[in-house]
Amino acid sequence: MRHPAFFVTIKFVAKLSREELLREFEPIFYPKSIAVVGISQNVFKVGSVWLKALVNAGFQGAIYPIHPRGGEFSGLKVYTSIRDVPGIVDYVIVCIPREAVPQLMDDCARKVRAIHFFTAGFSEAGDKTGRLLEEELVGKAKQGGFRIIGPNCLGVYSPEVRVPYGPAGRIGEIGSVGFISQSGGIGEKLFELGVARNIKYNKGISFGNGIDLDSPDYMEYMGADPRISVIGTYLEGTRNGQRLFSTMKSVANLKPLIVWKAGRTKVGAAAAASHTGSLASSAAVWSAAMGQSGVIEVQDVEELTDTMLIFQQLGQLEVRGNGIAIVGGLADGGGGISVSASDSCAELGLNIPELFLTTRRKLTNVLGSVGSILRNPVDLSQSGSNHLKIKEATGYVLQDSSVDLVIVQIDAGILLKYLPWELVQSIFNVFIELVTEQGKPIVIVSPPGAFETQRLEMEQRLSKASIPIFPTMRRAAKAIVNLNRYSRFRRGDA
Amino acid sequence: MRHPAFFVTIKFVAKLSREELLREFEPIFYPKSIAVVGISQNVFKVGSVWLKALVNAGFQGAIYPIHPRGGEFSGLKVYTSIRDVPGIVDYVIVCIPREAVPQLMDDCARKVRAIHFFTAGFSEAGDKTGRLLEEELVGKAKQGGFRIIGPNCLGVYSPEVRVPYGPAGRIGEIGSVGFISQSGGIGEKLFELGVARNIKYNKGISFGNGIDLDSPDYMEYMGADPRISVIGTYLEGTRNGQRLFSTMKSVANLKPLIVWKAGRTKVGAAAAASHTGSLASSAAVWSAAMGQSGVIEVQDVEELTDTMLIFQQLGQLEVRGNGIAIVGGLADGGGGISVSASDSCAELGLNIPELFLTTRRKLTNVLGSVGSILRNPVDLSQSGSNHLKIKEATGYVLQDSSVDLVIVQIDAGILLKYLPWELVQSIFNVFIELVTEQGKPIVIVSPPGAFETQRLEMEQRLSKASIPIFPTMRRAAKAIVNLNRYSRFRRGDA
Repeated sequence: MRHPAFFVTIKFVAKLSREELLREFEPIFYPKSIAVVGISQNVFKVGSVWLKALVNAGFQGAIYPIHPRGGEFSGLKVYTSIRDVPGIVDYVIVCIPREAVPQLMDDCARKVRAIHFFTAGFSEAGDKTGRLLEEELVGKAKQGGFRIIGPNCLGVYSPEVRVPYGPAGRIGEIGSVGFISQSGGIGEKLFELGVARNIKYNKGISFGNGIDLDSPDYMEYMGADPRISVIGTYLEGTRNGQRLFSTMKSVANLKPLIVWKAGRTKVGAAAAASHTGSLASSAAVWSAAMGQSGVIEVQDVEELTDTMLIFQQLGQLEVRGNGIAIVGGLADGGGGISVSASDSCAELGLNIPELFLTTRRKLTNVLGSVGSILRNPVDLSQSGSNHLKIKEATGYVLQDSSVDLVIVQIDAGILLKYLPWELVQSIFNVFIELVTEQGKPIVIVSPPGAFETQRLEMEQRLSKASIPIFPTMRRAAKAIVNLNRYSRFRRGDA
Repeated sequence: MRHPAFFVTIKFVAKLSREELLREFEPIFYPKSIAVVGISQNVFKVGSVWLKALVNAGFQGAIYPIHPRGGEFSGLKVYTSIRDVPGIVDYVIVCIPREAVPQLMDDCARKVRAIHFFTAGFSEAGDKTGRLLEEELVGKAKQGGFRIIGPNCLGVYSPEVRVPYGPAGRIGEIGSVGFISQSGGIGEKLFELGVARNIKYNKGISFGNGIDLDSPDYMEYMGADPRISVIGTYLEGTRNGQRLFSTMKSVANLKPLIVWKAGRTKVGAAAAASHTGSLASSAAVWSAAMGQSGVIEVQDVEELTDTMLIFQQLGQLEVRGNGIAIVGGLADGGGGISVSASDSCAELGLNIPELFLTTRRKLTNVLGSVGSILRNPVDLSQSGSNHLKIKEATGYVLQDSSVDLVIVQIDAGILLKYLPWELVQSIFNVFIELVTEQGKPIVIVSPPGAFETQRLEMEQRLSKASIPIFPTMRRAAKAIVNLNRYSRFRRGDA
């Protein structure tokens, strides 16, 4: 597919330099102007809502509402056609019925750089009209010299230029994570979970049917983008498996590429066909190809966000090995938690080495031997919830040379049954101090329960100190396994 | 082991009738008097805290604080020795150092019915003193005619007579779930998660080292107790594997017995030995024995509570088969969720049947075909979040004869981005109405996110309408698998 005007083809990545790739996608992720087609005075219509979201988010470029009747909307001049807008429009958001789309495509020729279709009803609808329309769109885009995002998707999220994600979108904190989601709804979940869990996105995209720009295109771009350090992806299928696999391989060599491939089962694949018109191939083929390429394969939205989070928080640290220490019992009664935590970690293949005798002696001095479990897991119940003892003991565990990473279980709901909030805060602070002082990674397991307000407040503070937090031991362990596997892949011993 | 006085032995269950078993445990779970040994004027000492918790919870029987110096505590007369207390004491809570325990045991002879040791430092400490003390305790209990709970545990939770669980315990809502936990800390988590998720316990116990009364004893009792409809258990090991396995088998034939066996891995088993002095055997042996006996084996605290919850909420309904329908997309964009939900369910062995053509026709009439996924999973995005359409469509899905249970995904955080709270409430209410009107079970998946206050409020309401709620699709699917497996076992086709 050759594009005569603004875009050179990006199908053959080898031919494009990193700079060319970045320039190609500039109008999509850093648009200077956005038109919204399909606004109306009915403020509940999606186009109107979307336009307001752009205004409210403080989008930094020009905004052009388009409607055949013209007039004014939200203080902005409404253009009756995209052709009347002065100059070139970088990005068009389309919220009109599928029947009106071909005429719009003609109007956009040589006028716009990229069109994003929220509009659905194409190949995923399963009717002939939808399929033919899709072919027509591709042809018109080629002739008109612009690229298509979608159809049937929520398009771009780009907080640096204040483009919110979707019609009810907001702007989150800016960081270095990128997401690519075939589904708009999953993209929305990723955004929301990001806000809740302190995952900071640099940009994101949902691309729906992907009839022109497809998952490999976005992967290549985010692979080339120096502002992005880790990519999380939700895929249902692809139109060009060979290209996708070779792209995943080259991108995974540059930075962590996490892929959740849905439609793995027969019934999931059937649903994917009705959702984004995707033809899903066998799960085994996908898994094998991803595993060989260094792609981090995950199984659900929880594992995807958990894994993005651990790479964001610990990706810069050198996690040298697989040796995990488990610390629990910050309030009385950490024994059972220690036993079951060991199971979860060991079953997923993590190594829980017995601490060196010198470490255990130091721990005995702090905690005493009666009622303590000190080999690893380490049960701090005998610290009497004294934050100085907790710090000293955890410090010894971190210093043990067989330990590469420490998992600490903190149950705020149970701590706050026994201790005043000030004391519990001092305990949480211990781990922030230890990470700063010792530089070895700490991962926190903090289950929901009673005292949710206090728990969330402490999680925010821990999170800002580069500590990743997970709601269950199993999820923490799985994220660590994914982190370690990629480290081994990059070192060449996977 | 024969007990001369209040207890006849319950080692040979076949010889005890249900009534005898219930009478045996009456002083433990329905005590008329409780003594707390180890209170002091230092209000931070655990004995003092525990005594106050008993008073605050409104325990209905007599409370006797014991301390060598006598005096008064919390408005109660302090006895200098348990021997001075008038009459028989049903239940003694012991919070004194291990060295003082043998003398106390002598004082308790013929005076008390059951002693619960919070005190730790016995076989789990790994020293000779601890082991010898434990043997001494067993001998003295036999001679003295009382039973031992523990040592090294939190003992009884019995909300009907207002005995809180542990020194910081409260009283939760009373229902029909029983818990048995070797670990006091895990018991506390089960209690707290119960409060958070509307699991209503009838009673619970943590039994630590279990040197006299052990897990099979508590299982037999709860098996016999007509107030209990489902039993959730956390085990680290046992002193008599043969007896435990035969007990589990007979109890699982009476009611659902859910068992989380920790210490499955080598490192977990080592931690269990330091925690409750348990010798864990091979995971495979345990799993095989449990599977054959109809015991529902679970892997972590989340699956244990999820499974107790689904039995509490749906155990009375006749879930006839394995046919699951998945409904999503209550706000825009349920497609990706539908695809991935199908994967999670199908991978765990649930059947997602294609809906009958008649059902799909009815759905098309309500939702239209463009943009809809209607075979199962069913994506309701085209309902425009209209609660009447959502009710009509979900009603048709429930009526489909291939469907035994419907899973509905509701993301309150995303719904509330688009809709006012009143509208979201009407949508939630649809499912309460449908369960009442149609009698087929609905399970809700409701992930945490933004708008936590509103989410928790709606979850409480759904929960009171016998709808079980899970935070992720995978956890819901796993709980349903456990429920179905037990139904098949009871029908004899497992």
